[in-house]
Amino acid sequence: MRGSVFTMLQEGNSAVLTPITDSKTREYLKLLNELDEIYDNLNDKHQHYLGYPFNLDLDYSCLGKYLNLQPNNLGDAFCSSTVNIDTKKQEREALKFFADLYKLPWEEAWGYIGNGGTEGNLCGMLIARERYPDGIFYFSKDTHYSVKKNAWILGKPGEIIPSQVNGEFDYDLLIERIQKNIDKPVLIVPTMGTTMTGAIDNVHTILELFNKYNITKYHIHYDAALFGGMVPFMENGPTLDFESLPIDSIAISGHKFVGCPMPAGIFLTRKKYVQQILTNSDVAYVGTKDTTITGCRNGLSALLLWYQIKRKGFKVFKQEVKNCLDITQYAKSKLDSIGWENFLNPWSNTIVIAKPNDKICDYWSLACEGNKAHIIIMQHVTKKHIDQFIFHLVSQKN
Amino acid sequence: MRGSVFTMLQEGNSAVLTPITDSKTREYLKLLNELDEIYDNLNDKHQHYLGYPFNLDLDYSCLGKYLNLQPNNLGDAFCSSTVNIDTKKQEREALKFFADLYKLPWEEAWGYIGNGGTEGNLCGMLIARERYPDGIFYFSKDTHYSVKKNAWILGKPGEIIPSQVNGEFDYDLLIERIQKNIDKPVLIVPTMGTTMTGAIDNVHTILELFNKYNITKYHIHYDAALFGGMVPFMENGPTLDFESLPIDSIAISGHKFVGCPMPAGIFLTRKKYVQQILTNSDVAYVGTKDTTITGCRNGLSALLLWYQIKRKGFKVFKQEVKNCLDITQYAKSKLDSIGWENFLNPWSNTIVIAKPNDKICDYWSLACEGNKAHIIIMQHVTKKHIDQFIFHLVSQKN
Repeated sequence: MRGSVFTMLQEGNSAVLTPITDSKTREYLKLLNELDEIYDNLNDKHQHYLGYPFNLDLDYSCLGKYLNLQPNNLGDAFCSSTVNIDTKKQEREALKFFADLYKLPWEEAWGYIGNGGTEGNLCGMLIARERYPDGIFYFSKDTHYSVKKNAWILGKPGEIIPSQVNGEFDYDLLIERIQKNIDKPVLIVPTMGTTMTGAIDNVHTILELFNKYNITKYHIHYDAALFGGMVPFMENGPTLDFESLPIDSIAISGHKFVGCPMPAGIFLTRKKYVQQILTNSDVAYVGTKDTTITGCRNGLSALLLWYQIKRKGFKVFKQEVKNCLDITQYAKSKLDSIGWENFLNPWSNTIVIAKPNDKICDYWSLACEGNKAHIIIMQHVTKKHIDQFIFHLVSQKN
Repeated sequence: MRGSVFTMLQEGNSAVLTPITDSKTREYLKLLNELDEIYDNLNDKHQHYLGYPFNLDLDYSCLGKYLNLQPNNLGDAFCSSTVNIDTKKQEREALKFFADLYKLPWEEAWGYIGNGGTEGNLCGMLIARERYPDGIFYFSKDTHYSVKKNAWILGKPGEIIPSQVNGEFDYDLLIERIQKNIDKPVLIVPTMGTTMTGAIDNVHTILELFNKYNITKYHIHYDAALFGGMVPFMENGPTLDFESLPIDSIAISGHKFVGCPMPAGIFLTRKKYVQQILTNSDVAYVGTKDTTITGCRNGLSALLLWYQIKRKGFKVFKQEVKNCLDITQYAKSKLDSIGWENFLNPWSNTIVIAKPNDKICDYWSLACEGNKAHIIIMQHVTKKHIDQFIFHLVSQKN
């Protein structure tokens, strides 16, 4: 399986002109050992991982040979480029899968696969800024920090609104704050799955308030990094799509529920906004048709997401969501049974718990905030993990 | 080598509860065939690739098992996080390798491995903006379009200065333009290897002009995406480092000369700037210590770059640079010998040529601009490739 120690010396134009000495061979073998140790250490941690919403049940190693290629989806996913070694066809098919799930008509869609939720949020917020240059960003105390960082990057820091205890916007305070800037368009970033509590900001409620207070100029960018890959597969899940709501853009993580060995994200928006930007904005002035954030883009992650979607499809994802939510309920009932303080939002696989001791937090890689922690039930988490975790908590109590 | 068709059904919490039917097996085998076709098609194009500066001589497939893990270098490379499954130790070692090459004292350095030159440029330009909020960006007509796009993202479009014929800044026009905004700090983005002509903007010249005209408030962000991985290994190469020049930040692509199956970039700056930002900027207000652009970061690409650096080291990279530049000279002499118009900058492996016909451009994946194209001699390019390319050009002439 492993490349020969000599491989690197023989191919193409990379060269060591002197023959390998024994000490060089020894050095290289040492490096391979080190690599194995890194692998074992990472792999071990993957076996007891409850703290972050990464799908660690990955099965991509059969695609290892792709690591010798360098597919690059440079620029717009909908335009070919002379780079020529790309996976844009697969990228578009993966995008279409999500556009369909979120009922965004394909002929009206634009988007790309980037390097994660943060990049998708940055792109959506950039589009919002260009649509309404005098707009003001609104997010909540529980919005992911990267959204606020993005606003700062975009030179347009916004208003941070207090949240309810469960993590959703305090809608009354939101509308109060908007009314203070009533002459300015609203660039709102609701969250589909807040980081700490797994709350879903209710865009239906936000829109009712917009209607009530006659707010007509707005851009809704949905930060769906966390739950965006799950909600469409939920039985009796919330209706959050482009058909039933005037969502303008959405960012969904690819490495979370869908699963990818590296950060990846699906970004979708309405094509007309991008066309407007290419006509009217300063970006037109610099003569580029590339409105992606990163330009050179990862063709491998696009391919892996496409492969995952193709081999799993709607049915398997749906079953996986059900399993995760079932085990979440199992975990909650176990926590209740030992009297461990916990909180679970509807449609959430994130259980907020009273923070265990440091040893437990470290073993299970738990993210903590003050005296709270959370566990997140992803595909790799089984009832056995939960039982063991509960055993650890009970041991701490005794 | 390939994962079993049943693997996905057995592991962890991902599940298909019904047994696989024959039609499902057939579908999956069809998908694997499709994957093979994609691989073969990409691999074929890799065999005759002259148009972009990607090192396609990669040997990473032995690390395929890492595709079943998900290392994530969340946030600052110098701070541990509860994510816990990271390769930050290796990331820092890779960063230190480049800090040493560019004579940036390690104890004064900050940086991270991101998703390519564009992200590194965005980070450097963001730091420049925060250092001098009233500063003005300057770049040349030949600066990579992503730099201008970044300025737009940062809400601070800049001044585009005409270039000399070889692709360098027109320094006289640069200083003329700066003098028009003499009360504003200068945020300059010189290029170490322009996209089309492989020119290196001379920071020594720029600094002489700054001294002459008493310009003291400036940030120099070096866009070294193209040649940043080569210059330190050149014999008699230009002296461009943090010791001999007051460079403030630099972005180097990892997937170009160093070589990586996915876009990756090394970003380095002086730590004190980041510390200032964390104290004074709006980003401090949002309560994050994460000043990376993307937050969730690719732990695999960091590991691959580390592995490449460890197994190759200074000597092999140096030999590879020499080989590439030797073959560049070989190609130039061949082009001269058939009377094909061409131009080569010093220290460059990019030869600008009169644009061949579309068939040739397509076969060799050449990037074109007007009636020019260029070929770039990377590690995977041999004399045989050049001979074949010359044969194609001759065939077109006849």
